[in-house]
Amino acid sequence: MLESLKERVYKANLQLVELGLVVFTWGNASAFDPESKLLVIKPSGIDYDKMQPEDMVVVDLEGSKVEGKYKPSSDTPTHIELYKHFKGIEGVVHTHSEWATSWAQAGRSIPAYGTTHADYFYKAIPCTRKLSQLEIETAYEIETGKVIVECFETKKIDPISTPGVLVNGHAPFSWGKSVEYAVYHAKVMDEVAKMAFRNEALGNKIPIDEYLLEKHYQRKHGKNAYYGQK
Amino acid sequence: MLESLKERVYKANLQLVELGLVVFTWGNASAFDPESKLLVIKPSGIDYDKMQPEDMVVVDLEGSKVEGKYKPSSDTPTHIELYKHFKGIEGVVHTHSEWATSWAQAGRSIPAYGTTHADYFYKAIPCTRKLSQLEIETAYEIETGKVIVECFETKKIDPISTPGVLVNGHAPFSWGKSVEYAVYHAKVMDEVAKMAFRNEALGNKIPIDEYLLEKHYQRKHGKNAYYGQK
Amino acid sequence: MLESLKERVYKANLQLVELGLVVFTWGNASAFDPESKLLVIKPSGIDYDKMQPEDMVVVDLEGSKVEGKYKPSSDTPTHIELYKHFKGIEGVVHTHSEWATSWAQAGRSIPAYGTTHADYFYKAIPCTRKLSQLEIETAYEIETGKVIVECFETKKIDPISTPGVLVNGHAPFSWGKSVEYAVYHAKVMDEVAKMAFRNEALGNKIPIDEYLLEKHYQRKHGKNAYYGQK
Amino acid sequence: MLESLKERVYKANLQLVELGLVVFTWGNASAFDPESKLLVIKPSGIDYDKMQPEDMVVVDLEGSKVEGKYKPSSDTPTHIELYKHFKGIEGVVHTHSEWATSWAQAGRSIPAYGTTHADYFYKAIPCTRKLSQLEIETAYEIETGKVIVECFETKKIDPISTPGVLVNGHAPFSWGKSVEYAVYHAKVMDEVAKMAFRNEALGNKIPIDEYLLEKHYQRKHGKNAYYGQK
Repeated sequence: MLESLKERVYKANLQLVELGLVVFTWGNASAFDPESKLLVIKPSGIDYDKMQPEDMVVVDLEGSKVEGKYKPSSDTPTHIELYKHFKGIEGVVHTHSEWATSWAQAGRSIPAYGTTHADYFYKAIPCTRKLSQLEIETAYEIETGKVIVECFETKKIDPISTPGVLVNGHAPFSWGKSVEYAVYHAKVMDEVAKMAFRNEALGNKIPIDEYLLEKHYQRKHGKNAYYGQK
Repeated sequence: MLESLKERVYKANLQLVELGLVVFTWGNASAFDPESKLLVIKPSGIDYDKMQPEDMVVVDLEGSKVEGKYKPSSDTPTHIELYKHFKGIEGVVHTHSEWATSWAQAGRSIPAYGTTHADYFYKAIPCTRKLSQLEIETAYEIETGKVIVECFETKKIDPISTPGVLVNGHAPFSWGKSVEYAVYHAKVMDEVAKMAFRNEALGNKIPIDEYLLEKHYQRKHGKNAYYGQK
Repeated sequence: MLESLKERVYKANLQLVELGLVVFTWGNASAFDPESKLLVIKPSGIDYDKMQPEDMVVVDLEGSKVEGKYKPSSDTPTHIELYKHFKGIEGVVHTHSEWATSWAQAGRSIPAYGTTHADYFYKAIPCTRKLSQLEIETAYEIETGKVIVECFETKKIDPISTPGVLVNGHAPFSWGKSVEYAVYHAKVMDEVAKMAFRNEALGNKIPIDEYLLEKHYQRKHGKNAYYGQK
Repeated sequence: MLESLKERVYKANLQLVELGLVVFTWGNASAFDPESKLLVIKPSGIDYDKMQPEDMVVVDLEGSKVEGKYKPSSDTPTHIELYKHFKGIEGVVHTHSEWATSWAQAGRSIPAYGTTHADYFYKAIPCTRKLSQLEIETAYEIETGKVIVECFETKKIDPISTPGVLVNGHAPFSWGKSVEYAVYHAKVMDEVAKMAFRNEALGNKIPIDEYLLEKHYQRKHGKNAYYGQK
C-alpha cells in the first residue's frame, strides 16, 4: 500500500544525507496521506545504504503499525502530533543538522537576520521551552510533539508560514505541504542557522526590518507572488 | 538569438553551484551584450539540474522579455540597473553565498585585511545602506540596484576595480567584464569574507597598509601588471 | 592469523578517512581478539591508499609483535593499556579529528549540551590531566594509556557508557565493543565537539537536564531500549 | 631538461588543489635541483585543469628563465630567496590556504597548542614583520623572501625543524627536503592553524609544555625517531 509515497519518503531520507543534514542514521522523514489518514516513515536505526523503499513503515494516527517488517522511527509519535495539529502539512523531517542543532542546544530561537530567512520563514524560527522531568519520563516523543504545538500556539506563530522549530536541548523539526518541502525547509533552516551564527559573531543582533521580511516572504509565497514560474 | 551567450550564462550559473556559492536556486548570473543592448539571464526558480542553455531568458534594458519560454529571474531589474550605471561591465552575479551573506546581514563592509582581497578588490567591499520601507514596497528590485549605484557614487568607489557589493540585510552582488569574471569575483568575495571573519576573531581589526594593497592590486591589474601570461 | 579481524581493522582505518576524521596518516584503529588475547593494529606511518589488509600487525598484550612485516602504530602501547583496563572493549581508535582535538588542546571536557551527545555518551566526555615531564620522557605512550584510565577511575566514569576521552594537549581516543563501534564513537565525538563549540559561542554553558540525558541514553542503550530494530 | 622534476612539481601543484589549499590559481609549488642549481616552478596564472608537466618553468638562482614557454610564477623571487638561505630545502610552496592566511592577516604567529603542531613544527609558526613601503615598492617579491629569512634569523628559529611561515598581511609559505614535503607541510600548517583558532575560542592561550612538544617532535624527527617504518 502507498507504494509511491514509500518511494518518495525513501528518497527524502536519502536526500537528507546528500544535503549534509544527516550523519549515520540521525534523522527521519515521513509523509502523511490525507485520504487514508496514514503516514509513511523511515524504519528505526536502519543504515541508509541498506534501506529500500519497501522498508518504509506505514503507521496510523494512533501510532499503530499498519504495514512494514521493521519498527518505525522512534520519533514517530512526534511526527504524529505535528500531523494532527498543523493542518495542511503532509511531510515532516527531523534531523540533528549541525547548525540548527547548535542553536537548539543553546536554547535560542533564530532571529530573522536576512532575506534568506525571510524567503522561507515568516518569523523567527522558535525554540521550544524545555520539557519537564515528568514529560520526559512518561511519554517523551509525544510530549516533544506537544511542546512544539504549544510553542506555536503560545507565540501565535502560523506553522504553515514558519515551517520549522528547534526543540530545546535537542534538535530541529521541519515540515511542509509535502515530504519534499519538509526536506527543503530542513536545509534552509540549517543554512539560515549558520549565517545567523556568523552574523552575530560579526557584531549584529538586530533582525531585518519588518517590511523587508514581509517583501521577501510575500514575493515568494503571497497571493501576488512573482518568484519562480507559474 | 545570442545562443553562444546563453551557453555561457548557463555554464556560469552551474559554476556557482560547483564553487559552493549557491544552494538550491539561490543565485543568478547574467551577461550583457553591448552590441544589441540585451541581457541574457537565468529563468526564475528553475532547478539547476533540469536547466538547459536554451532556457536562458533574453531581456532588454527596459526589463521586457525579448525571447524565452520562462520568466526571467526576479532579480532581473537589479541586474539591469547595474548594467545601466556601471560602464564596461558585461556580467552580473547574485548569490546568497554563506560568508558574504553573513557580512551583509551584519550590515558591514569587508575591510581589506589581506593580499587575497587586494588581488581583486581595490577597496573595502562596501555594504549599502538599508532600503526604506517606501523603496521596498514600490519597486524593490530596481531600488536594490539603485542603492548599490548610490553606494558606489557616495563613497566614490570605482565599480571596475571593486567589482562587488553587499546589499544590507540581504546578500552579495558581483560583476565584471564578462559573466565569467562576475562568477570569479563572487567566489573571491566569499573567500575574502571568510578570512576577514576569522582574522577579526583572531583579534585584528586593522586593514593592510595602503601601499601593500596598491602593490597587489596593481601587479595584477595595473598598466604594468606582471601577473599571469601576456 | 586473525585474517578476518585484519580485514575489519583495515576497513575501519579507511573509514576514518572517509568520515573526515583523519588527514594523511594521523590516526589508527585496532581490534582486540578476546580468545587469543591478541590485538590487530594499523602499521605505523603507512599511506592509507597503499595499505592492504595483510599489512595489519598482530601484537600481544605485552606489546610484542606476533605477526606482520611492518612495525605497529607507535600508539600501540596506549591501545594496550585501554584493552587491559576497560573490560569488555574490543576496539580502540585514535585520531586528531579537528573538533575533538581543538577541545583537547584547550584542555577542556565536553559537557553534554544536547541529545546528540546523550545518545552515545552518558556523561561529559572527559579531558585528562596533563602528563608530567617524567611520564612523557620515560614511557610516553604507556603513560598516555594510564592517564586515560586514571581519569575514568578518578572521576568515577564508566568507560562502557562514555566511550571516549580527550588527552590533554593531544587528541581524542575512543573505543567500543568492536572496532566498528570505536570508529562510530570517534565520529560522534567530533560531531558533538563541533556542536558544543558553537553552542558555547551562542552563549550557553549549561548542560542539558540530567533526566533528558538519561532518557536519550537509555532509550538507545538501557535494558528497555527501543531505538533501532531488535 | 629536468623532466622528472617537472612531473613532480606539476603533481605537487595539483595536490594543493586536492588538499583544499588552493582556490583557482592562488598557489604555487617549486622544486630545487641541487646539482644544476636550477629550480622548476609553476607558470604564472595558468588554470590548473589546463596545465601540463611540460608547462613547468625552469629558472636559475638569479631568476632568469632557462627553459619554458610560459612566464614563471610571479612569486619566483621569493622561492629563490628561500632556496638561497635555507640550506637543505629542495621544495617550496606558497598558498592562500584559508586558515593559515587568516592568521597571517591577523599578523599573529601560531603557538604550539597541541601535538599535531609538535609532530611537524618544532616551534611556534612565526609571522614576519610587515614590509615597509620602500620594500614593497622596490622589489616586493625579493623582499618577501628576505623578510622571511630575517624572521628566522632574528628569532633564531631553525627553518628545517620549523618548515613554514606566515607573511604578515599576506599568506603562508612552507618548504621541506622535497616539493612533496613542502606540500605536506602546507597542509599541516592549515590544519594546525584551524585547531589553534578553535582552541583559542574555547578559552585557552597556553601552549603545550616544552617537554611534550619535544617528545612529539623527536619521536618523529629526532635521531632516535621511532614513528613510521625504517
